Amino acid sequence: MVSSRARVRVEAPCSTANLGPGFDVLGLALDAYRDIVEVSLEEGYGVSTAVKGPYAGELSEPPEGNAVTVIAEKALRECGFNGRVRIELVKGVPVGKGLGSSGASSAACALALNILLDLGWDEVKLIQLAMEGEYAASGSRHADNVSASLLGGLTLVGSYDPLEVVRLAPPEDLRFVVAFPWEVSSKRKTEALRAAAPRNITLDEHVSDLGCLAILIAGLVNSDPELIGKAMGKGVVEKARIPLVPGYFKVREAALKAGAYGVSISGAGPALIALTFEEAAEVAEAMKKAYIEQGFTPEVRVARPSCGARIIPEGGEEP
Amino acid sequence: MVSSRARVRVEAPCSTANLGPGFDVLGLALDAYRDIVEVSLEEGYGVSTAVKGPYAGELSEPPEGNAVTVIAEKALRECGFNGRVRIELVKGVPVGKGLGSSGASSAACALALNILLDLGWDEVKLIQLAMEGEYAASGSRHADNVSASLLGGLTLVGSYDPLEVVRLAPPEDLRFVVAFPWEVSSKRKTEALRAAAPRNITLDEHVSDLGCLAILIAGLVNSDPELIGKAMGKGVVEKARIPLVPGYFKVREAALKAGAYGVSISGAGPALIALTFEEAAEVAEAMKKAYIEQGFTPEVRVARPSCGARIIPEGGEEP
Repeated sequence: MVSSRARVRVEAPCSTANLGPGFDVLGLALDAYRDIVEVSLEEGYGVSTAVKGPYAGELSEPPEGNAVTVIAEKALRECGFNGRVRIELVKGVPVGKGLGSSGASSAACALALNILLDLGWDEVKLIQLAMEGEYAASGSRHADNVSASLLGGLTLVGSYDPLEVVRLAPPEDLRFVVAFPWEVSSKRKTEALRAAAPRNITLDEHVSDLGCLAILIAGLVNSDPELIGKAMGKGVVEKARIPLVPGYFKVREAALKAGAYGVSISGAGPALIALTFEEAAEVAEAMKKAYIEQGFTPEVRVARPSCGARIIPEGGEEP
Repeated sequence: MVSSRARVRVEAPCSTANLGPGFDVLGLALDAYRDIVEVSLEEGYGVSTAVKGPYAGELSEPPEGNAVTVIAEKALRECGFNGRVRIELVKGVPVGKGLGSSGASSAACALALNILLDLGWDEVKLIQLAMEGEYAASGSRHADNVSASLLGGLTLVGSYDPLEVVRLAPPEDLRFVVAFPWEVSSKRKTEALRAAAPRNITLDEHVSDLGCLAILIAGLVNSDPELIGKAMGKGVVEKARIPLVPGYFKVREAALKAGAYGVSISGAGPALIALTFEEAAEVAEAMKKAYIEQGFTPEVRVARPSCGARIIPEGGEEP
């Protein structure tokens, strides 16, 4: 039941979700940031967790409440493993910015445990496990971020019951600029942001969102930035959240003026994501400037669609 | 301003819309039936319309109220043409069955006028013109059927204001079985069926429909019948309409038992459409039998995705 390997290291990319009309449905893995999870066997019983890396300090929960601990305890219970697993999480994805930070840790941890404990769980089962970590961290059982971080590329969550996730080839030639202010975190606000989503939607709004999502997927499938740009940032949930995202209007306007095809809130924000092609550097600069002008300290990165969670070979980079 | 041709003949295929979660957003051209529209110049002013063909008798409106007349009058007004246009419509698409009958006439007529009068209107403008015919016939200004009949393949209506339509390559190897009872027509019921759609939708229903639509498009793009089948027939609008569609449950069950991947109401019904692959003949037979067992006289055809409206060359088939 246990792999011949005494330790397994997995890295998983950050992700953006929604892109506007794809609320709780669409995820896209990005190579802007990544988490690394190392799992290893130790003498004794249970799970021990250590967190390090540039954003370790941002995890306010004690390690016991961390997504990776929750996942490991659940996996151990479910497979009846009676030993002890040590987890080391290298937190490379900024926390609470809307970049699927807990989703990346969760996806990396789920895949690492699958290998270490020789669980033989399939993708759906691993997403379900990772969703438990996401739930522990965010209070919401959505699958868009964990699916993207696990499978890579563009992922569509077709249904939650039963869980149905499809991976589409990511548009390789597109670039995404991710930008957020360090001062703001949605970590404590995810629930507020989810609460801001309207409870009731009119048929017209519903059809409008269906149309935007159709255009968005068609654009992503065909790698057509103009089409994607027309749909990005639309949708009833995005609209309801805008007032809760600091700097939204000015940063968005700056990005569009600099040549971005579209801008949307990344996940639950506060990060914004802009779609670009060859003008990525100009868009990044414009977004940075717009944040500074509003008194924020911005973090801005140009990202490509990323592959999903993957094993770091022995002898590779240390966590 | 007028083409060198004295008459132009255009054929346009029927279409199915919605496929469940794609309400008012998704159209698919099918080669099951087609309309032919011939437009020609005559002495005098205005528009004269004649209707013939197998389903001419089902058009209860006088020719003046017909979709093609409405379109021609609008086009003549808009381009300032002062002559007379004669229209001959060969009605080959059954009327009021949910197969985009008025959409096919409208698409064919719009394209024929564009050529005859040398209007130089683009696709969007032609769809908008054809939508006026659809509106005259059905009381609803939706673009899914006319887009599919005009452009062919799979069409996605991303937005209505401004009108944004995307054509995706149709899944060539899929087969669709179209079936309906002759006794039932939705011609008088389109408004009732539209009224049956819920006015307010919960966020959960909204997300569920977004997910189904995402899966549906991913399946169609990848020509993956299992994926399409999972999403087809889902959605809040489809669900609300089922009680208004005679024979739905038994015909659907028969199709699925015979190997169909999914079944949905075609447009506003009463036609049902089943997705099949190699088992099209068996599915068609099963649907036929199920209608007969319920006391209906069924019409059943196996269809492929079709190209859009196209000119019939001079010397080709007479209308």
